[in-house]
Amino acid sequence: MANGAQALLTTLVDCGVQVCFANPGTSEMHFVAALDAVPQMHGVLCLFEGVATGAADGYARIAGKPAATLLHLGPGLSNGLANLHNARRAHSPVVNIIGDHAGYHKKYDAPLESEVESLTAWTHGWTRRTTGGDEVGRDAAEAVAASLTGPGGVANLILPADISWGDGATAAAPHTPGSPSRPDPAVVAEIATVLGSGDPVCLLLGGPATGAPGLAAADRIAAATGARTLVETFPARLTRGAGVPAIERLGYLAEQAGAQLDGIKHLIVAGTRPPVTFFAYPDRPSDLVPDGAVVHHLAGLDTDVVAALQQLADAVAPDTAARGAPPAVPDLPDGALDAHNWGQVIGALLPAHAIISDESNTSGLLLAGATAGSPQHDVLALTGGAIGQGLPVAVGAAIAAPKRPVIALQADGSAAYTISALWTMAREGLNITVVLLNNNAYAILRMELARVGAGAGGPKAAQLLDLARPEMDFASIAQGFGVPATVAVTCEELAEQFAAAVAAPGPHLIDARIPTAF
Amino acid sequence: MANGAQALLTTLVDCGVQVCFANPGTSEMHFVAALDAVPQMHGVLCLFEGVATGAADGYARIAGKPAATLLHLGPGLSNGLANLHNARRAHSPVVNIIGDHAGYHKKYDAPLESEVESLTAWTHGWTRRTTGGDEVGRDAAEAVAASLTGPGGVANLILPADISWGDGATAAAPHTPGSPSRPDPAVVAEIATVLGSGDPVCLLLGGPATGAPGLAAADRIAAATGARTLVETFPARLTRGAGVPAIERLGYLAEQAGAQLDGIKHLIVAGTRPPVTFFAYPDRPSDLVPDGAVVHHLAGLDTDVVAALQQLADAVAPDTAARGAPPAVPDLPDGALDAHNWGQVIGALLPAHAIISDESNTSGLLLAGATAGSPQHDVLALTGGAIGQGLPVAVGAAIAAPKRPVIALQADGSAAYTISALWTMAREGLNITVVLLNNNAYAILRMELARVGAGAGGPKAAQLLDLARPEMDFASIAQGFGVPATVAVTCEELAEQFAAAVAAPGPHLIDARIPTAF
Repeated sequence: MANGAQALLTTLVDCGVQVCFANPGTSEMHFVAALDAVPQMHGVLCLFEGVATGAADGYARIAGKPAATLLHLGPGLSNGLANLHNARRAHSPVVNIIGDHAGYHKKYDAPLESEVESLTAWTHGWTRRTTGGDEVGRDAAEAVAASLTGPGGVANLILPADISWGDGATAAAPHTPGSPSRPDPAVVAEIATVLGSGDPVCLLLGGPATGAPGLAAADRIAAATGARTLVETFPARLTRGAGVPAIERLGYLAEQAGAQLDGIKHLIVAGTRPPVTFFAYPDRPSDLVPDGAVVHHLAGLDTDVVAALQQLADAVAPDTAARGAPPAVPDLPDGALDAHNWGQVIGALLPAHAIISDESNTSGLLLAGATAGSPQHDVLALTGGAIGQGLPVAVGAAIAAPKRPVIALQADGSAAYTISALWTMAREGLNITVVLLNNNAYAILRMELARVGAGAGGPKAAQLLDLARPEMDFASIAQGFGVPATVAVTCEELAEQFAAAVAAPGPHLIDARIPTAF
Repeated sequence: MANGAQALLTTLVDCGVQVCFANPGTSEMHFVAALDAVPQMHGVLCLFEGVATGAADGYARIAGKPAATLLHLGPGLSNGLANLHNARRAHSPVVNIIGDHAGYHKKYDAPLESEVESLTAWTHGWTRRTTGGDEVGRDAAEAVAASLTGPGGVANLILPADISWGDGATAAAPHTPGSPSRPDPAVVAEIATVLGSGDPVCLLLGGPATGAPGLAAADRIAAATGARTLVETFPARLTRGAGVPAIERLGYLAEQAGAQLDGIKHLIVAGTRPPVTFFAYPDRPSDLVPDGAVVHHLAGLDTDVVAALQQLADAVAPDTAARGAPPAVPDLPDGALDAHNWGQVIGALLPAHAIISDESNTSGLLLAGATAGSPQHDVLALTGGAIGQGLPVAVGAAIAAPKRPVIALQADGSAAYTISALWTMAREGLNITVVLLNNNAYAILRMELARVGAGAGGPKAAQLLDLARPEMDFASIAQGFGVPATVAVTCEELAEQFAAAVAAPGPHLIDARIPTAF
């Protein structure tokens, strides 16, 4: 006879959930004990909930299915929220198991008591508080299906301790997730007419359209019609490199985006929304669609966007093939590292089938060009802007694809948020190479201080954007968490260390000293 | 003419807020720039919002007034929630300044957009979204007053970027916080009768009653009537040591608490609530009040509880003095460190006027006895159970009392949550000695696994409670964040390093290798 925790775990496994990123507490002890009764579930210990939720996001982006998390009551969930925000923006399926006090205990308002549902509401996710052993299996199956419905999203299952430990619980069979709508032929035909109009057109891709099939369809359209193509600024998973159509990302800075969209009369959006600025800036528009341009929605995230692109390509480019990027890597640079040449080292040495978890922020502004002709790879971007995503996402990606090399390109300021992800990399022996872009500053904020019109800033403002006093020694920190680490000051050092790290099993961190451009 | 950020900062300073623990983003750049226009505000950079909120809690517990935090939109607030939960349970005044997108930008649902109010609701705090430059000063003054009203609490001021940068804003004069109610003479008289009844009575103290005046009044009552006295399990600030009445804390384990309360007929609560278990356990009551005992509420947190205790003492013990603990410190032990003797080292060497930020968890179960006769000190406990409080609270306490030695007694698993607090200690040159109790385990969970009836746990369960693979080298981590660090394996090493660290200015971390008892 199963207790609630065992029925829950059995159901999750039967629904295809194989990994649980966990940071448990007392109220989750029966769930932890049940891991020995349901050995198909791989429990991965994280030392902070933001690592667990970010890892689940990274896992989902690569595996295409959810991992579970195990979180300790409201405060545990609260620590995981920022990376759930990023997961929501990535449309990643994630199933949170949120332990809570036994139902009868909540009225006592014990120290860890809080309104869990106030936090789950913030995730925009499916949420249910399971209320009995005869329901926990069904609720878990529905949670998994909910996470996979539509473009994918966060599902929250609140598990009271007395349901977890109560006997007589029953597992449930998988539920079928909702399917995306099929493309509307009338919309496809209308947009085909726009593409044939001769007006300047741009096709903006996002969501599932940034995989190889969507990019190929978009490039056929571009090749046949002359339309520009762009990928949304922060894609959840962008396939690129040699053999894949090279489609530029929309710039983060409004100045860049303005140039990319300048002169268009029609903007076709597929799997994303019309572009807006990341932040508001005084006296500048938030809406990046050029004045007078008409927006056309080919397919939203509730529709099969790749099929819509393929139908559109078949309509306007029936005999046109997609153009894969030619294989071409930069020469290895030499001399001191700077904001430009470190990316050339990565481009020159990127291994085949790599996954890049990209939280390089300002240091990565020139990365895309350096890796455009490297072997095919996937880039996982910072979808929601909540920093501290990069290392956890790398953990999840590496667990989803243990045979692929994972490269975490990680800005220093952001790294400090979820630095204990390094420990999980070491514990699990994950094939992750962290290139820690150590410029001793919140460089992006130095840039933004002026861009928002706050002026150059005085000495007190400068101090709040400066990470140099004291300088962080990330190699020392990594070693403290059990990850071998080295320091690179020159291109030669970075190249040698990167090649060795990629070739060796397990994680390695390179503390790359990159002067900031700001 | 001031912009909104300048008016806000001027108002905060005029209201007595002198410190802002900040982790800013683009939407807060005008606030950052305004720090140079309002130099009375000390901006303290934290590398993670949970450090900022925990530091504000620690500051408030020592300073008795709020610090501000500066948080970056909903995700920034989310990262600070766990320590705001602890601050709420500590009744600490904290004023959060939460930057948000410009009002007109919110409709675009840019990547960092979220429902900030869903998160502020979770804090149980006063919350306002300021809507104009003519209101931001008034709103800030009300926020400070709200944080100081009643026992103290969290106040959330949401600051849209366009209010921050908008001109024509005006500062406001301080508002007067609400005062606590005066004690009810009828209640005092009734409880005096209970104390005179001859029945076994226990007086349980919490909130402001755990400072020296409340403890003295309680001890007079105990000395005159024979009543037992206890302090709540996790006090926000407990004064103790030589010269202060030694009043035991109610045990964390129900077994301990049951023994402490066994046989009483009346429980008088002052500044706290009747005790309950921290978690629910199968087949054990959550309510710790013994069957048949009558609960009497001397004063809740809306009442001046110290005055109530003093009036009660004057009624039942007019001629009785409080009994300060005699000065008596343990002999310095020798040999390998263990779960018991490390506390004796601290007790033997604790400097005068120390502040202890206590997140020692299982390693600290025997600490209280070892420090009972040490020089007078304050202990700041983990009020809300959300781990990761200890290092940030130490930061805030050290900034509130720069001349007092701050000792952070920090469990290893909890330390990983907010480890970047070490960097702020180094940057600010804070006089903090961190004793990192490194037992390579979530030892409390090993204990709880059995206590909740989940059995001994199999190998997969054991793995989720084990921090030994890989072992964390906290000295290396601390040095990476700029904090000098040493490793202690023996009592002699701990004693030598602790004495040196306390004597030297600035922070120091001792990675104390303590075998776990579980």
